[in-house]
Amino acid sequence: MAEFATDPETAPAVQPVQAEDLLGLDAELVRSAVAALDAGDDDALREILAPMGPAGVADLIEILHGAQRTLMVEHFAGFFDPLVLAELDETVREEVAAQLGTAVIARAIAALDSDDALALILTLGEDMQRRVLHAVPEALRNMLEEGLAFPEDSAGRLMQRELVAVPSFWTVGEVIDFLRESDDLPDDFYDIFVVDPRHRLIGMIALSRVLRTRRPVAILDLMAPVLVTIPLEMDQEEVAYVFSRQDLVSAPVVDASNRLIGVITVDDVVDVIHEEAAEDIMRLGGVREDDLYHAVLNTGRSRFGWLFFNLLTAIAASIVIGFFEGTIEQIVILAVLMPIAASMGGNAGTQTLTVAVRAIAMKELTVANAARMLSKEVLVGLFNGVLFAVIVGGVAWLWSGSPAIGGVMAAAMVITMIVAGLAGLAIPLGLSQTRFDPAVASGVFLTTVTDVVAFLAFLGLGAWFLL
Amino acid sequence: MAEFATDPETAPAVQPVQAEDLLGLDAELVRSAVAALDAGDDDALREILAPMGPAGVADLIEILHGAQRTLMVEHFAGFFDPLVLAELDETVREEVAAQLGTAVIARAIAALDSDDALALILTLGEDMQRRVLHAVPEALRNMLEEGLAFPEDSAGRLMQRELVAVPSFWTVGEVIDFLRESDDLPDDFYDIFVVDPRHRLIGMIALSRVLRTRRPVAILDLMAPVLVTIPLEMDQEEVAYVFSRQDLVSAPVVDASNRLIGVITVDDVVDVIHEEAAEDIMRLGGVREDDLYHAVLNTGRSRFGWLFFNLLTAIAASIVIGFFEGTIEQIVILAVLMPIAASMGGNAGTQTLTVAVRAIAMKELTVANAARMLSKEVLVGLFNGVLFAVIVGGVAWLWSGSPAIGGVMAAAMVITMIVAGLAGLAIPLGLSQTRFDPAVASGVFLTTVTDVVAFLAFLGLGAWFLL
Repeated sequence: MAEFATDPETAPAVQPVQAEDLLGLDAELVRSAVAALDAGDDDALREILAPMGPAGVADLIEILHGAQRTLMVEHFAGFFDPLVLAELDETVREEVAAQLGTAVIARAIAALDSDDALALILTLGEDMQRRVLHAVPEALRNMLEEGLAFPEDSAGRLMQRELVAVPSFWTVGEVIDFLRESDDLPDDFYDIFVVDPRHRLIGMIALSRVLRTRRPVAILDLMAPVLVTIPLEMDQEEVAYVFSRQDLVSAPVVDASNRLIGVITVDDVVDVIHEEAAEDIMRLGGVREDDLYHAVLNTGRSRFGWLFFNLLTAIAASIVIGFFEGTIEQIVILAVLMPIAASMGGNAGTQTLTVAVRAIAMKELTVANAARMLSKEVLVGLFNGVLFAVIVGGVAWLWSGSPAIGGVMAAAMVITMIVAGLAGLAIPLGLSQTRFDPAVASGVFLTTVTDVVAFLAFLGLGAWFLL
Repeated sequence: MAEFATDPETAPAVQPVQAEDLLGLDAELVRSAVAALDAGDDDALREILAPMGPAGVADLIEILHGAQRTLMVEHFAGFFDPLVLAELDETVREEVAAQLGTAVIARAIAALDSDDALALILTLGEDMQRRVLHAVPEALRNMLEEGLAFPEDSAGRLMQRELVAVPSFWTVGEVIDFLRESDDLPDDFYDIFVVDPRHRLIGMIALSRVLRTRRPVAILDLMAPVLVTIPLEMDQEEVAYVFSRQDLVSAPVVDASNRLIGVITVDDVVDVIHEEAAEDIMRLGGVREDDLYHAVLNTGRSRFGWLFFNLLTAIAASIVIGFFEGTIEQIVILAVLMPIAASMGGNAGTQTLTVAVRAIAMKELTVANAARMLSKEVLVGLFNGVLFAVIVGGVAWLWSGSPAIGGVMAAAMVITMIVAGLAGLAIPLGLSQTRFDPAVASGVFLTTVTDVVAFLAFLGLGAWFLL
């Protein structure tokens, strides 16, 4: 830690927010906000909202509903913070944006940095987007339209256009003077970029290096090589991956001829990482997106598709059982026991699938090491298959009183567990070679395979050995 | 963008790494590294590894195995980067650490910032940890032992001790002079902290503000209030939540009397977010942790527990079916159709469960809004339940030729879907009120409920109406 001489004079203490207070809304806070709303007391409301930050206010708006939410937004328009809009859940945001109106939103957007402004514009419905674009100053409109022209989820959409670039022939002193005199600098910046006359990036300097260096030192001598440049079209998921792999705080975005266009800072990347993680979790769970705040009809409709797909696979499993109607008629206990093998296969497969989908996303599972991982999953399936064959075979024997039924159950279990491990790895790996997202489609294919194999093995072996 | 006068003189261009090159290892690279290893060509190997960064080298070591990995580590010890060790998967890391030996690791750790050094020490096995602690210089040992005394996954473990703190009576000029003269500053820093003589935090200043301000300005006038302080004991998951909610780049860590102890920077938080997201995904998938690189026996054993738990629920479902053996004997088609209701219920429940677990983690679903969300899930269940009742009832009618069986199927479907929605929300919500992690245990309870309800509804209604 850097030391300094202490002084008896004590500076006035500012009371910081304890980080615990930021963890979710407590019921007390919601109650007092509602009370202020009901009393129409704008000053009290403003005092309650001030320390909550944009995300906290967004949470509060989300938790209110019906007339209370309308009333809240009405009062809130008086001291509107546009970042609250960006933090709102999509469904709630559209409702709030419509209530606030174009003029209020346009004024607020004009006050933001270009990346925040673009992010906010992107969250608005198409109609509102067009109206707000018309209402902002022309320079901002042009910049926003340029941003909108970049592909969805690309680095171009994520970057901030405001940055500090200096020529390499300057000295540290000239840079400091420039920073002190310039009045259109970004709100926050962490690096100074060094460019050639054609605005191509040739180096960068962390602010802490500039501060530690004497004025006469040449920028050319101080600057570090640029370790990573982000191309304009790179997907945001890949941007996040690069940031976390290289522990970056900010990275320059360049066009095809290495000209410096913008900068991506880590706070935007943190949002992307959260988003992508949520997306993976949702997809593995068979939900298209977080639908917590959607209306019933929208939620129901968006979940229907995946359930319908699942129905087809369930019917496929039933068709397999249908082949063995005669067998079941003679040995009813088979119908009682058959869901056990299917359930175990589905769960063992899901375990492998989860590890595999994650490893593919982290680029740790590729075709290069697929063969080794497949043989490992076969062995794991064999290991647990044999263990559960003993347990489940024993249960089936005791239950049915027939050692033959126990044996059929045990054999079906081993077969199902091995196939589950293989399919749990091979299905997402295969899908990753296509344009499908392994996280979305793998689950349905997997349970089809494990159900069909489990019923076929158990009932087939039953029909063969027991009749 | 900040403008400046251009100059015809062109600076020498440094060739940056294109970010695409950082996305995973290509097979070509692995082949050339193996070739350099086989040839025993250290210079070629070093040249291949240099641009890969710690994470890339770790990937390469992970992808090699057996004798190749041993050989790689042997050569790598010659130009050892300790950050590679931190990036390795746990199982692989222990193997590599043992091969490198205490002396090499201790030397490397002494060169790191305190947070990186602590993170690395923590990843070593207990035995190796003790030996390395003995081998590092005493000052570092004391600092590391202090860090190890903080609770696991706490802010104290995450923070870096190196920071820049200045008294409030200084001017900007004094701060700049101090930074230029001091030689034990952290490698990178983004904020300067202002403390009183008892080292209590009273304000902070972003580096960009210092750089833009003239020398005579007083720090007291320039400093901003501290918006967020992180207590030493705060859990890392909550630290990550606060960082992303408040878009922080660094935050001060304070003890109970508000004395400044350390600083947490966003790059460490990015790692935590990745870790926690991976943990959530793994737990929902019924895997304790990412076991990609574990040996077969370890993987099999760690997955066994969850599968065994699942077996108990599968047996519970079978017991329910067992009640209706007589019914199935008379109407075999019931056995053929019964998995459809169970499968649909399990999947619909998992959809709700996924949204609910995520919303609980994001602090968006609490007991405060539970009633509203529960009634919504009932309506969604009713919506999709009725749609699928029509479809599946029709299929069952056509298949069996009996409208009564179609009707039983349809009724069972509506009941199952509503219960699935209710259970998918209520189970994780209930678990979140206990000390259990909703992500771990919810899945098993859910499928037990949906299976039992589906079989009970379908077979029970069948026995009642069809016999």
